[in-house]
Amino acid sequence: MSLIVMKFGGSSVGTPERMQRVAQRIIQTKEAGNRVVVVVSAMGDTTDDLIDQSKLLNPNPPAREMDMLLTTGEQISVALLSMTIHQFGHQAVSYTGWQAGIVTEAVHAKARISDIRPDRIFKSLEDGQIVIVAGFQGMSEEGEITTLGRGGSDTTAVALAAAIKADVCEIFTDVDGIYSTDPRVVKCARKLNEISYDEMLELAHLGAAVLHPRAVEYAKHNNVKLVVRSSFNQNEGTTVKEVAVMEQGVVVSGIAFDKNVARISILGVEDVPGVLAKVFGALANNGIDVDIIVQSGVQGGKADFSFTLSSDDAEKAIEVIESISGEVPYRETTSEVNLVKVSIVGAGMVSNPGVAATMFESISKLGVSIKMVSTSEIKCSCVIAADKLNDVVRELHTAYGLDTAEQVFVGGPQDRR
Amino acid sequence: MSLIVMKFGGSSVGTPERMQRVAQRIIQTKEAGNRVVVVVSAMGDTTDDLIDQSKLLNPNPPAREMDMLLTTGEQISVALLSMTIHQFGHQAVSYTGWQAGIVTEAVHAKARISDIRPDRIFKSLEDGQIVIVAGFQGMSEEGEITTLGRGGSDTTAVALAAAIKADVCEIFTDVDGIYSTDPRVVKCARKLNEISYDEMLELAHLGAAVLHPRAVEYAKHNNVKLVVRSSFNQNEGTTVKEVAVMEQGVVVSGIAFDKNVARISILGVEDVPGVLAKVFGALANNGIDVDIIVQSGVQGGKADFSFTLSSDDAEKAIEVIESISGEVPYRETTSEVNLVKVSIVGAGMVSNPGVAATMFESISKLGVSIKMVSTSEIKCSCVIAADKLNDVVRELHTAYGLDTAEQVFVGGPQDRR
Repeated sequence: MSLIVMKFGGSSVGTPERMQRVAQRIIQTKEAGNRVVVVVSAMGDTTDDLIDQSKLLNPNPPAREMDMLLTTGEQISVALLSMTIHQFGHQAVSYTGWQAGIVTEAVHAKARISDIRPDRIFKSLEDGQIVIVAGFQGMSEEGEITTLGRGGSDTTAVALAAAIKADVCEIFTDVDGIYSTDPRVVKCARKLNEISYDEMLELAHLGAAVLHPRAVEYAKHNNVKLVVRSSFNQNEGTTVKEVAVMEQGVVVSGIAFDKNVARISILGVEDVPGVLAKVFGALANNGIDVDIIVQSGVQGGKADFSFTLSSDDAEKAIEVIESISGEVPYRETTSEVNLVKVSIVGAGMVSNPGVAATMFESISKLGVSIKMVSTSEIKCSCVIAADKLNDVVRELHTAYGLDTAEQVFVGGPQDRR
Repeated sequence: MSLIVMKFGGSSVGTPERMQRVAQRIIQTKEAGNRVVVVVSAMGDTTDDLIDQSKLLNPNPPAREMDMLLTTGEQISVALLSMTIHQFGHQAVSYTGWQAGIVTEAVHAKARISDIRPDRIFKSLEDGQIVIVAGFQGMSEEGEITTLGRGGSDTTAVALAAAIKADVCEIFTDVDGIYSTDPRVVKCARKLNEISYDEMLELAHLGAAVLHPRAVEYAKHNNVKLVVRSSFNQNEGTTVKEVAVMEQGVVVSGIAFDKNVARISILGVEDVPGVLAKVFGALANNGIDVDIIVQSGVQGGKADFSFTLSSDDAEKAIEVIESISGEVPYRETTSEVNLVKVSIVGAGMVSNPGVAATMFESISKLGVSIKMVSTSEIKCSCVIAADKLNDVVRELHTAYGLDTAEQVFVGGPQDRR
């Protein structure tokens, strides 16, 4: 008898029919002799509808009240899912985040889980009940209702799995698992049977939107075995764990990409100590995340440097840089949008030199110029023009031996809360 | 500086415009130098929508899960109302029932409040905040979310007012206060300035749907001064308190009526001890509330008796009686629907003999026959044919000197949760 945490996203329970299918799936798992704890997100568009309602009354509401508002979405889901399971003749009990003992920091909209006190969950499991917990939410020590921010329900599931020492945490989604790349771009993308936490983290950060990075970090830190699988079929999915079995000759596990990348260059900057800290400090204070930073050589006491960021932030970033031109004198700024970042990720890269060289070669063979490069132990990223993205991804997928014979069915948009 | 509890029903906050008007009203009260605690119901049709959603998945859901589901309605209201007050530049904090310290019995759908621990409310009031509490809900000692059943938000408001020793509990509704009778029937109905708890209880029980009887009982028991007033204007409303000032010469305060009354008679019942207990015990066990009971004289060891009940329950009641005919032999049952009960209510009746006689006289003058009568210290009720209701109410209103010169504006349907 295993103890299993099953997590379902909002699109999986977005209609009465889907809710019923999820209930059946849970009951199957229970009837197979397992103890089951379920984590659910808010149904379909509930969260967006609540946000729309609030905007009419206050375009900039206090985060505390927003948490009070949005947590109702998951409370509705858990209550309805529990009722559905009862209708099928099984015992279930729904819990809000605070009832499930999920304690968070005393911040709103993006609290981190600080403790889990699963007494009530254990009690209900002992009573033979299916336990259904509202994802995305918790309570501070002061009794304030909090939310975990984006990816919150994944994090709830992983944190609960760690706290109750579950044998596995299954993340149900609308795809069969983690793919070597986006099957919408490469039809012969392969589903990975296993992947390490570190690889998954790189893929998650790089825009493969199946698992939230925070949840993966939590799983790695607590050694929770994750399985990403489809809520529409019984396929085995992808297991995410500490050391994944590597297929013979495969050093790159996946190819990720991030669209909407922009580059900004600041040219002719006075090369005095603290210049970088001032620029990137000012950007961070304005909520702008910067990705790759490259500084070119100094000439005549002046330096050029470039960085990438989300193209949505490009305009604001230039304003911020102009606003500090008194403190950080420079000659000019240039910027470029319509860029993308393509990355190869693989735990095998550490022990296989020359992996990056294959990447540069494949890209140059297509006549595409590489604008920036960034590497880590298990990944290599190149920034290129957006219009060449698909060609490059396909080329790399082939070059690293990832193509399969099968074509992949791709479901609807994935659900990311 | 007074401490005021203000309660708004779901129709008062049913649209963004209404929510804003309620927020302004609250802010005015705060700015007049008062400390303010607000109780709100779920907005407009939210509760019905949630019930409809649940019925699709489970036509007969567990009460516990229904409470989990329905309490989200008030949580949405309090969060949005708090945001609206913030938008107008004032400080507010919303609380669920459990956060506000409302402790109930461990039953679902109709829990009674067992304790209130208003520490957080006092703390927030000290911080100068407007406190907004979700009506209708609480938490059991075991940490289960409960609801108070019908009239729940009124009860929350009154119970909170008692616990924090508020100077007044204002119940905002869509009418100007308590009327001498339904202004839709009698155009010149008068608004009462004051009324006693006992009179209000009789009126509430008799179908005047402005205040829930349970809330009135709670107010009487804890001596909470209630004011029923309009959320649409600044009129003074009706004060409900222990001893109301009686107007000169007015012994009857109001005329109430209850539509949809049915009468069932059981004829030729064996007159042995315990017969009534068996019949009415069986009806109670089937959830059927009986109102007036009349037993006529015994002849030849056989008795006839009649009772009134809601016409919705009439068919079921006859089935129940037939099902116990083995234990309680009788000759036959007869029934009559399309009846109404008209009642005069007045604290002054105790010390004024002959008040009931005027009622019988007024009714008979209209050629209407009185089918059943029931009296208490402060009321007298007559059951008559439904088609004569309006004539009788108007006649009684005039006979007891309640007519005013003014005509009353009547708003939309009242909101009763």
